This record gives sequence, C-alpha cells and structure tokens, in this order.
Amino acid sequence: MTTETHPQPCDLLIEAGWVVPVEPHGVVLEDHAVAIRDGVIVALLPVAEARARFVATQTVSRPEAALIPGLVNAHTHNPMTLLRGVADDLPLMQWLQGHIWPIEGAVIGPEFVADGVTLAIAEMLRGGTTCANENYFFPDVQAAVYKRHGFRARVGLPVIDFPTAWAKSDDEYFDRAGEVHDQWRDDPLVAMAFAPHAPYTVSDANFERIRMLADVLDVPVHLHTHETAQEVTDSLKLHGQRPLARMDRLGLVNDRLVAVHMTQLSDAEIALCAERGVSVVHCPESNLKLASGFCPAGKLQRAGVNLAIGTDGCASNNDLDMFGETRTAALLAKAVADDASALDAASALRAATLGGARALGFGHAVGSIEVGKQADLACVDLGQLETQPLHHVISQLVYATGRHQVSDVWIAGVPKLRGRELVDIDTAALIANAKQWRSRIAAIRLT
Amino acid sequence: MTTETHPQPCDLLIEAGWVVPVEPHGVVLEDHAVAIRDGVIVALLPVAEARARFVATQTVSRPEAALIPGLVNAHTHNPMTLLRGVADDLPLMQWLQGHIWPIEGAVIGPEFVADGVTLAIAEMLRGGTTCANENYFFPDVQAAVYKRHGFRARVGLPVIDFPTAWAKSDDEYFDRAGEVHDQWRDDPLVAMAFAPHAPYTVSDANFERIRMLADVLDVPVHLHTHETAQEVTDSLKLHGQRPLARMDRLGLVNDRLVAVHMTQLSDAEIALCAERGVSVVHCPESNLKLASGFCPAGKLQRAGVNLAIGTDGCASNNDLDMFGETRTAALLAKAVADDASALDAASALRAATLGGARALGFGHAVGSIEVGKQADLACVDLGQLETQPLHHVISQLVYATGRHQVSDVWIAGVPKLRGRELVDIDTAALIANAKQWRSRIAAIRLT
Repeated sequence: MTTETHPQPCDLLIEAGWVVPVEPHGVVLEDHAVAIRDGVIVALLPVAEARARFVATQTVSRPEAALIPGLVNAHTHNPMTLLRGVADDLPLMQWLQGHIWPIEGAVIGPEFVADGVTLAIAEMLRGGTTCANENYFFPDVQAAVYKRHGFRARVGLPVIDFPTAWAKSDDEYFDRAGEVHDQWRDDPLVAMAFAPHAPYTVSDANFERIRMLADVLDVPVHLHTHETAQEVTDSLKLHGQRPLARMDRLGLVNDRLVAVHMTQLSDAEIALCAERGVSVVHCPESNLKLASGFCPAGKLQRAGVNLAIGTDGCASNNDLDMFGETRTAALLAKAVADDASALDAASALRAATLGGARALGFGHAVGSIEVGKQADLACVDLGQLETQPLHHVISQLVYATGRHQVSDVWIAGVPKLRGRELVDIDTAALIANAKQWRSRIAAIRLT
Repeated sequence: MTTETHPQPCDLLIEAGWVVPVEPHGVVLEDHAVAIRDGVIVALLPVAEARARFVATQTVSRPEAALIPGLVNAHTHNPMTLLRGVADDLPLMQWLQGHIWPIEGAVIGPEFVADGVTLAIAEMLRGGTTCANENYFFPDVQAAVYKRHGFRARVGLPVIDFPTAWAKSDDEYFDRAGEVHDQWRDDPLVAMAFAPHAPYTVSDANFERIRMLADVLDVPVHLHTHETAQEVTDSLKLHGQRPLARMDRLGLVNDRLVAVHMTQLSDAEIALCAERGVSVVHCPESNLKLASGFCPAGKLQRAGVNLAIGTDGCASNNDLDMFGETRTAALLAKAVADDASALDAASALRAATLGGARALGFGHAVGSIEVGKQADLACVDLGQLETQPLHHVISQLVYATGRHQVSDVWIAGVPKLRGRELVDIDTAALIANAKQWRSRIAAIRLT
C-alpha cells in the first residue's frame, strides 16, 4: 500500500461491496473501488485507499453490490428481438419455413434492423451486457446503431450462398463486406467480423475467399457449426468430412474461428479446438429450445478451449438475458458431463465475460477488471432478499441473481444504466415502437 | 352475455390486459376481469361487462399485465433457503458430508426452520408463487409460519430410518406426525402430507405404515425417488426391484403418490404412473446442478401423467424462482425428447399451476382461474421492454418473463404483494435476519 501526498484526479470512482475482476480467476475483492480516467481503468484498490489516492469528478458507492466486467453476448441476431416469441414449440423446418422466413421476407430492411438492434441494446444494458457479437443482415445499419448508443460490438459481415435483401450474388456479399469493413476500420467501439452463415450454406470457394480476407483484414470468422447431428451427417454425405474437418481443410480452424453451438463434438475435435485456439460459443438455451443437442461445455473448458456464451436471437431463446444464459450453461454442463463439479460458477462467469471478449478479439480491451482495460462494467445489487444470505459472491451471481438486479452499467466509462434507468434511451418510445412492429408483423401473418 | 339491472357487490375486481385461466387449456382472454368475494372467484368476464355487473370494494386495473393462477412450487425444502449457495459445484457426497450435513447438524431447530420459511415465503410471493409443497423437519413450525403469513402449503411429515433433531425413533416419527396432522386437520390454508424421505432411507415396514395412515388420513405421500441411476442400481441390488416396483409392491403407487425427480424411467414405468394417477414433480434445475439426470418431462406429459414443477431447496438450485424453473423445464424437455414441440409453453405453465395443485391434492381449490376456486392469483407486467413486442402471451410468460415482472399477488383474495412490495412482511428486517444467519453459518464452518 502506498500513500501519496497528492491525490490524483480521476473521472469516476466506483466503490462496491465486492469487486469480481474475473482475472485473476475466482477472486472476490471485498470493499474495493475502481478508478476510471478517460474511459480506462487506472486503479483497482481497497475503498479506503482509493479515497486517499484519488479525487474523483464523480463517485458511485454501492456497498451492497458486486462490480463485475460487463457481460459479453458472444452470439446473437439482435434485429430478431422484434420476433421475440413470434413462433415457438415447433419443429425446426416448420418454424423456419412457416413462420420466421416468411416474416423476415416481409419486414427485413434497414428500419427493421435498426429498430430491433435498438430494442436489443436497451435489453442488454438492463441485463448487464456491454458487448455483443452480432450476426444478421445489414451490418452497416447495425454498426451505426451500436455506435450511436455507445455500445461495444463485433458486427458480422454476412456471407451466404443465396440472394437476400442484403446482397444478390457472391461478389456483392464480398463487395459490401469490404465497404462496411473499411468504413469501420478504426472505430474504438465497433469492429467487423466475417460471418459465413454455416458450412451447409456456404461453398468451399466462398470459405477460401473468407479465409484469405480474414487474414488480410485481421478479423474473426463467426460461424454457426456442428449445431445439430443432421448437419454433421449431411456434411459427411456431401463432402465426405465432418464440418470441422472440412473447415480445417479450408484453413479456417485457427484462433480467428468463433465456432457457435458445437453440440456434436468428438474428443479429437475438442483437442483440435484447444490446440488451434478456436473459440467456442455455447448457446445452451437455443440448443435446448430447438432440440439441437448438448454442447459438452465442461469438457471444452477442461480441455482449455476458450469458451464463450451467447443467447442466440430472440426468436429462439426468447431473451437476451446473459445472467440466465450463464446460469443455464453452468447447470446444464453438470448433467451433460455427469459431474456436479463441471463448469463451476467462476468458470461460467469467466466464459460470460473474458471468454466472450477473447472470442471476439477484444480480450486485450475488455472482459475483466484490470488496469489499462476499458471500463465496461456492471453493478449488481446483491442486497435483495433473493440473493440473501450471501455466503459466496460468485455462486450467488451465477446461480441466484436475476438480471433485474443490475443497477448500473458503464461502457468505456460512460454511464449507460443508472439506478435501473437507461441513461440515453427513451424507454417509452422504444416500447411504443415495439408495439407498432407487433401490429405490422401480425398483419403480415394474416395475409 | 347477461345484463343485470342491479350490480352485485364484490370485494375485489382485478382487471387485466390478459387473463390466462390455465383451464381451459391454452386460452388467453383479452381485457378480462376476475371478481372475488370472500376470497373466492365469483366471475371471470370481459372488463366492460364486469364494470356493469359488479360494484367492487376495491378495483385493481392492470392493462399491461397478464393475470395468471398463483404458481405452485411442488417440491421444496424452504428452511434451506438460509443455505442458499453455501456450497456449490461439488460431487453429491462431498457436498452433503462436507457441507450440508455438518451445517444442518449445527443449526437445525425451530428458529432455523421458522426464519428459513419466512425468507422463502417472501421470495416466493415476489416471484408469483402462492403455494408450496414443503419437505423438511419441524413441520409444526413450518405450518405455523405458513399460516401466520396466509400462505397456502402442503407440509410434509418426515419419516426417515435414522434419528434426527425432529424424532429419535420410528415410533416418534409417527407419533409426532399424527400430532401435527391432527392439529392442522381442518385448516383452509395449510394441510399435511406424509414425506418419507426416499426409498433408500425408509424401510418396507415404515412404507407400509405410511400407506395405511395416508389412506386413513386422506393425505398425499411426498417422496424423492428415481432421482439418480445409482438409486435404481442400489435398489435392484438390495431389494431385487427398481424403486417404483418396490413402492408398487408396498401399495404406494396410486393417486396419492407425489413422486419427485424421476430422472430414471422406462416407458412401462411412465405408463404405470399414468394409469395409477401418480403425480410427477419435475425439478429440472436441481437435477442439472447435482448431475442427477434428465426427467423425461415431454414423454410424461404426452402419456397423460400429471406433471408438476418444483424448485427443490435453495441449497441445490439456488432460488425459489418458479418462472425460471418452468422455463428451464420447457426448454430442457425439448432437447431431452429430441423434439422442439415437446412440453410447449401452455403445457409448461399448466404444470407450474394446475399440475402442482393437483399433485398436492389442492386441484379442487386452486391452480386455475375458475369460478368457485380460491383467488390465488398473480399479476405479471408484460409492458416492460424485455417482454416486447408481445406476439403471444403464454409464450412470453414462459420463455421471456422474469419473476421480477410479478407486480401483485393474492392468496384467497388477500393481497400479499402490491406493486412489488410485500404487504405484511418487513423486508428490511428479513434481510437483516438473513445476514445474521450468514455470520452464524460462517462461524460454524470455521470450527
């Protein structure tokens, strides 16, 4: 402990009953504070010491709360928030062909994308999420909305082997991807990834083009894969290889790969992912709801694979609740591994924060509370009776806390949620807009 | 529609944007009201008609909310709420022997039971739960606490083949059970059940005594069984029969049986449960967290077995959130059945309400919003942005609603939660008490 004669200025001092930095792993620091200057964490230290060392423009004191890194939703389709619960409890193809695709066909476009992402940002902020890995059409519109709201995002540049409202040909997908990437090349909050839809909807030639460009542009490759047993069987028939083996042949199994779902994995495939630095995004609730299968999250974590957690889109979840998703991941991993110690609370919280940040290529900037990182933070009120008595902070955060206990959120030190109120989003207008979309979508379905 | 010349008096009129009565199945009634007199539902009708037909002492209007039957938590150990998260992520025997049993040994008694149940009642009310199936020691203390708070409960009279703080011998278990039962024989809110712990901790002789007494006293038999594969294997070794076959030999497989967990079931056992009117209580989160196995909830529901949902105790969950539990049940059922249409939203909500009420022998009185039933009701605010747009009410309740969206709760027409505030529980005192228990339990563990 150092005592300095002259207190240093900082913009914001957040004092919390407990700080869970995530790195070092499993640590809980009682009565600690985080000092922030220019959006960056400049110190993490005991409250008493912080008060002596810093003169803060603003101090936020939350003695009943835990301060954690903002959660990272590592796989989502946020425009689909407007389709929350539009069709449920249906077999996959009936759900897609009878509901999701016809509705998307009628509504997709910049307005739908912008309004859906805005609603999603509000929901994510109220649930302690500060960063998303986005995967949908119109990445240009998405990026602009994230930027406008000061929300951190990795936005996927879609590639799929058939025409959509976004692009009509292979060349157009790549041309538009290049344009959008160039536009956002140096942004501190919003960056791009390639997002080839899935092995069964993208050709070898397009995957090769993606590999080359991802290397040149230094961006992640965000891919749904090994989602169902059917996908693996079909790939064996068509390509004579499982999807991961085919991706490996095409040079994509490396530390750029963000492999989403991964419910069908052999031990050798898990070892390959660990060796090559592949990130796996576990979306437990979507996998359950669509009866896709069970991702071996415990095995992946123990093998040293970088594990992240995603909600998937609201049409198949039906929320963007990273507290709920992390809890489901931690619970489900145990039954799948037949081992009650699989994916313990601290490892689950790590997957939901630093694991996600690393998957998105943002591990240097966010995902943990460390000096030098961006101040993407969430305060969680543990004083409510639903989280009492408080025997273990990290256990409580993962197994008992509801997202409504998030009181305050900052992104790069900028307040986004304050005492449960969104700082710069008009909630009433947002809800009115969602109700309009409900009517519009109901009308489509009747025709 | 009848128009009456003279409006009738009623105590309470609750007007809601949507009423989900649960019976008839899957129905959503828009802009409907429930009229209540002397704690009983006297009418369910459109708001406009209700206003013409009733003069209410009090009217509660919730145009953005769904009114649902109070949720029934069909299996819990509520005193253990004080052990929320005290030990997690451990193999079963290490968890029990190294943590739960030593702590219980040091704290168990009337004070622990009363304080734990009080905290649990507060948590349940704030989450829309109005009825619990309780299973712990000191049922006399539990019953008194439920009664004091006007909370509906079926309280288990414990029987286990070894001495505990509650009773030292077989005879004492039965003597005390008889006394407590007699004391509560005619209570309108609190009733008793037999609660033999499990097939592996209760002898044939005690099961036979329970069967005889349960028939005479007309009470349910609340039993943990088929919880793990190990339990089934051990029973085969020791008794030459699976637990359910052994229970059948002892005359217990009938419509009094409330069989909890049931993760290990053959198709023949499912058919037997359906034929005999056995109720199955599914505790998905406890089964996941303890790596017990997967209850075939979809198969049970389709076979016509009365399915209920329980949270289990807070030491293995770690909450009493029936919204979360119902959602997990609906999601998990699909992956377990390999069928995205298994346990649809309406069926899951039914299990969490009417299924639970029937399991507890309260099906005539609660579990659905029907004329003549007790007014055990919960209002759920669907106007928040996390449940917008609102394409389908029941889907939203099951797949997107958090328990914090419960605004108001009544039991037998008596308000228990009003605008998120507990009506007759001092929340600050409750939390202070929980913090004291935290310190006491921490001290135990250090010795």
